[in-house]
Amino acid sequence: MRRMLAGWIAILSCGPIAAAQGPAPHLVKYQATIDVVKYVYGSAPPVARLAPGDILETNTLDAFGDAIQKPGDTLALVKGDNPLTGPFYIEGAEPGDTLAIEFLSLEVNSNQGVGAFAPGFGALNSTSYTPMVNPPLPERIWLYPIDNVARTATFRALDSNFSVKIPLHNFLGCIGVAPAGGEARSSVVPAEFGGNMDASEASVGNTLYLPVNVSGALLFMGDGHAVMGDGEVAGTAVEVPLRVRLRVTVLKGKRIEWPRFENQDEIMAAGIYRPLDDSLRIAFTQLIGWIHADYELSELDAYELLSKVAKIHVTEMVDPNYVIIARIEKKYLPPRKK
Amino acid sequence: MRRMLAGWIAILSCGPIAAAQGPAPHLVKYQATIDVVKYVYGSAPPVARLAPGDILETNTLDAFGDAIQKPGDTLALVKGDNPLTGPFYIEGAEPGDTLAIEFLSLEVNSNQGVGAFAPGFGALNSTSYTPMVNPPLPERIWLYPIDNVARTATFRALDSNFSVKIPLHNFLGCIGVAPAGGEARSSVVPAEFGGNMDASEASVGNTLYLPVNVSGALLFMGDGHAVMGDGEVAGTAVEVPLRVRLRVTVLKGKRIEWPRFENQDEIMAAGIYRPLDDSLRIAFTQLIGWIHADYELSELDAYELLSKVAKIHVTEMVDPNYVIIARIEKKYLPPRKK
Amino acid sequence: MRRMLAGWIAILSCGPIAAAQGPAPHLVKYQATIDVVKYVYGSAPPVARLAPGDILETNTLDAFGDAIQKPGDTLALVKGDNPLTGPFYIEGAEPGDTLAIEFLSLEVNSNQGVGAFAPGFGALNSTSYTPMVNPPLPERIWLYPIDNVARTATFRALDSNFSVKIPLHNFLGCIGVAPAGGEARSSVVPAEFGGNMDASEASVGNTLYLPVNVSGALLFMGDGHAVMGDGEVAGTAVEVPLRVRLRVTVLKGKRIEWPRFENQDEIMAAGIYRPLDDSLRIAFTQLIGWIHADYELSELDAYELLSKVAKIHVTEMVDPNYVIIARIEKKYLPPRKK
Amino acid sequence: MRRMLAGWIAILSCGPIAAAQGPAPHLVKYQATIDVVKYVYGSAPPVARLAPGDILETNTLDAFGDAIQKPGDTLALVKGDNPLTGPFYIEGAEPGDTLAIEFLSLEVNSNQGVGAFAPGFGALNSTSYTPMVNPPLPERIWLYPIDNVARTATFRALDSNFSVKIPLHNFLGCIGVAPAGGEARSSVVPAEFGGNMDASEASVGNTLYLPVNVSGALLFMGDGHAVMGDGEVAGTAVEVPLRVRLRVTVLKGKRIEWPRFENQDEIMAAGIYRPLDDSLRIAFTQLIGWIHADYELSELDAYELLSKVAKIHVTEMVDPNYVIIARIEKKYLPPRKK
Repeated sequence: MRRMLAGWIAILSCGPIAAAQGPAPHLVKYQATIDVVKYVYGSAPPVARLAPGDILETNTLDAFGDAIQKPGDTLALVKGDNPLTGPFYIEGAEPGDTLAIEFLSLEVNSNQGVGAFAPGFGALNSTSYTPMVNPPLPERIWLYPIDNVARTATFRALDSNFSVKIPLHNFLGCIGVAPAGGEARSSVVPAEFGGNMDASEASVGNTLYLPVNVSGALLFMGDGHAVMGDGEVAGTAVEVPLRVRLRVTVLKGKRIEWPRFENQDEIMAAGIYRPLDDSLRIAFTQLIGWIHADYELSELDAYELLSKVAKIHVTEMVDPNYVIIARIEKKYLPPRKK
Repeated sequence: MRRMLAGWIAILSCGPIAAAQGPAPHLVKYQATIDVVKYVYGSAPPVARLAPGDILETNTLDAFGDAIQKPGDTLALVKGDNPLTGPFYIEGAEPGDTLAIEFLSLEVNSNQGVGAFAPGFGALNSTSYTPMVNPPLPERIWLYPIDNVARTATFRALDSNFSVKIPLHNFLGCIGVAPAGGEARSSVVPAEFGGNMDASEASVGNTLYLPVNVSGALLFMGDGHAVMGDGEVAGTAVEVPLRVRLRVTVLKGKRIEWPRFENQDEIMAAGIYRPLDDSLRIAFTQLIGWIHADYELSELDAYELLSKVAKIHVTEMVDPNYVIIARIEKKYLPPRKK
Repeated sequence: MRRMLAGWIAILSCGPIAAAQGPAPHLVKYQATIDVVKYVYGSAPPVARLAPGDILETNTLDAFGDAIQKPGDTLALVKGDNPLTGPFYIEGAEPGDTLAIEFLSLEVNSNQGVGAFAPGFGALNSTSYTPMVNPPLPERIWLYPIDNVARTATFRALDSNFSVKIPLHNFLGCIGVAPAGGEARSSVVPAEFGGNMDASEASVGNTLYLPVNVSGALLFMGDGHAVMGDGEVAGTAVEVPLRVRLRVTVLKGKRIEWPRFENQDEIMAAGIYRPLDDSLRIAFTQLIGWIHADYELSELDAYELLSKVAKIHVTEMVDPNYVIIARIEKKYLPPRKK
Repeated sequence: MRRMLAGWIAILSCGPIAAAQGPAPHLVKYQATIDVVKYVYGSAPPVARLAPGDILETNTLDAFGDAIQKPGDTLALVKGDNPLTGPFYIEGAEPGDTLAIEFLSLEVNSNQGVGAFAPGFGALNSTSYTPMVNPPLPERIWLYPIDNVARTATFRALDSNFSVKIPLHNFLGCIGVAPAGGEARSSVVPAEFGGNMDASEASVGNTLYLPVNVSGALLFMGDGHAVMGDGEVAGTAVEVPLRVRLRVTVLKGKRIEWPRFENQDEIMAAGIYRPLDDSLRIAFTQLIGWIHADYELSELDAYELLSKVAKIHVTEMVDPNYVIIARIEKKYLPPRKK
């Protein structure tokens, strides 16, 4: 049985916090529950408003809306996949800007996580979009005890006695903004607006850049993962509720087409489509464009250099679109243009 | 201009070398030149014979047959892509066995490597198998000075003055055996028999397993790489001639369907096809089968566990087939079956 | 220069028309203009309401909003791709029902059609979702004179003097309803809700079935085509405004997952995704399900029979999703279940 | 039980036959049996030699080597898939030439055909190259009575009493030459050299063009089909032995890269790879090249015209490579260049 770590957050209390410069950023707190989550990235009344530089403290439910708690619970209990916390309205963010999100803290808000064969997800089984006439897989659920002190989740085999501890790497499987052109997309979809990218890069130490498509950007998040393999091949990570602390900034007049990540050492461009071949093409043409625009290399030199030093991260091949992140270490690049 | 490090090898001299047990393994030496290389994995008279446990010392020409040596040299000088050293006949290897290859030493046999936009290769440009009506890319060649002491290759931009050193990671882009069923495949193709896998795992510290399809296995190798990014996106690595030292062993009666790698810490299964989606499916179903057969996990438990801890390596998306290697650390697995 | 055939329709006049049985169906007329078109399939106030059995007479603008009229006009004049007429609210249509649309008349509402290389579309050139580093294609526009009496469009080569007449086959490239789950999708997207299917089956003599996802279904249409090749490979058909006459019916309690077509001789199931491989898998598993549910065949017998007599129609490989329609002639099927 | 129509052919008898001009063509007869068939397209001693213009009368075994004859027979009886008759050496055919094959007569050489779920084949089930962890399909075999007078095959459901007659359309599923570059390919593979294209275009009334890669071309054929649906989705057609009558000609100095078909009304280019998206790209870029080279249209005009009038035939999506044939009616083309 799973014990929720409740009561840690005061709803929507606000107060000034320390910052290096400019007007004092505020701390905005917001608590999500199953009654107020969303299942679509799109226009909706904001649950809170943030100024650029503000810090948000909030929480996310797990991918099953925290419905799976003990052995015997089934997916029939789940009201909807990937319930989203938000949207958060970012003051001053307008179409054509870029939203920057720094992940400050992501902590598992439970002592247990969930893995499952969920119908419609999976890289090696028939799904809604790669249907087969083969018989389907059985529904199966694995419960993962989580030790937030030792920072491990424990895999326990269902068909034998084996168990093993796996180090936690907490991240938000879902983080995105309202799409462009008046579209609204399901919380299981990743695309240009971010969304269900299942990118372990959405974690402490990294900054995520998303294109702003509507006034206020409308930021959503959810689908916390405590542990995930590349590709998320069976369709789930160790699915957990999270306590989230992040800072949002707006890059005015900076236009990007697809999500990007950055940290001290690397720049990273996401490509999100299907098949993986095209995800890869998107990610790398974006990364070439980034290198060409912000560093001192021609596009063809950048293409050649990436062929020598790029890293490829297949984050997932199980959602309606597949995600590849192309990465290069900054040490291989010329100095950034001022 | 490139200075070849010639004369380092005595042709076909043999002598006993030390080994832990069994009959003393021999050292077999063989020197390849442009006149005796092959361009097809398939039946051909062996250039040398090895007993299981023997060590082979040989060399490989670069992917262009060492034809590109100085600025101004063009791809028109190249006689054939990926000239192969071999085949080597492994005594006692029969169809249904597995060939194990330990990479003992791989050293760059030159002070220079080559990168190029070669027609027909590239993940982000039109090719023979993803043709487009867009205008083609220009032919371009980058020469990479190699420092074998500091162990770096230097990228020098063609369109600006930027240069940067990249650490060497030498490996064999091509290593494979004669295919099954009487097939013969071009040296640019990777498939079930190995071949042009462009896998950085074909390097010192790892063991490669290949299915044996014909008596003697008939081992070929070539296409040395000193540096390569994931995906080899522009179509080439830093292409170099290599001096190769490796040990071959035969696992009698052990049948595998696709290439596998292993080192002290990991087991790794290759999937080689197209699109990447199917390469990934092959790699992971093979890895599940391996875990199920050699460790104490059911297939569904293995599938779930991989969704939590697997790593994915996209080695290349530029050859006629694409290669994905699915990996798991042994620390996450039960003890291996005896 | 193109002469629009204006004034043919009285806005929103209604009157009873003949029908075989039940309460007299009405004729509902609605005229669309560039000021009231939509660019998204999703929730929006209906422009008119229809009862089941009613006939709708309306018009659609061409894919460019009728902006390209004469030599020298460029795509920069286009305000948005695929402007949609609608939505039409169908009384009594509720989620879980199926909307049936009979195409009664589709006439070109102009004496000219347009073909173009539009950025982002095309099966053989780099696009937003299959980006390449090759140089892009030039923008090009072909104007097609249309003879509505002889029922031909005339292709005139731009680079030589060749011209040839092609018979008209008018159809709606876009026809769809509001998506499920609160999604809203761009007018260039085809998916489960129909949309930009570019299916020549959306033409006189056929009935289209669409899943109802919201109360009233909310029917949209646009993107008239007078002539189109399979695959629409260069990204456009002969793009025309249309005068449309169709009848809508609601199949209560009949749930389908993807669009279907039917005529006197055939049943047809659409699969809409990417790559084409998965579009084909969706189309055929849907067709097998249809045969199994409505005719007297097991799923495996249906699979085998389709392997012998199915027809495949690749309608387009140029939009964000690709469309394949799997077809079987009714003469090869058992009698339909009552 | 199946009665073979034996003894209809005299082995290797030859005699002059009528022809319009030049030296009198000969009739070459050759009878294949299970003991002399091949399973690989590649170099092998020719079974007979033909001069350009000669007519060949021969036979092919069915895809199962005629091993499945009666209810209860299983695929375990099959020695190898797609046994090939040949190779035939064509005098004067040299690399860089094109081989033209006119299909004069193709008659079913049995009163029964076979359909089956064969492991590894199928568009909607897991295969060797699209493996899934779902449970596999059961092996199933359907026997099709064939009436060679009424020219029908009869489908009989296994799980109900339904049966239906289907008109015969006989063609060679396999027809190909020795590959280029010293490759040899399995008889289940289609590729640049032709092979297992499963193209219903390989039938009476059409001419097939294949690139010549080795002296004598080395023509193979097999895998007769009496009835097949587009895509051959379940992995087999109505598989039959055939009596074959065809004429071979050599187009000296005419170089093509992929197979092509032609008849009185159409030109058709095959694209053979994976996924279908790339098969389509190959087929259409080849067709554009053909139109540009042999007719009076620029490549961009040809691209546009194909977007308006092309037809797409997905012949199969079940073999190691998938086949799409792009077609255009000659009436839409300028006069052919002399």
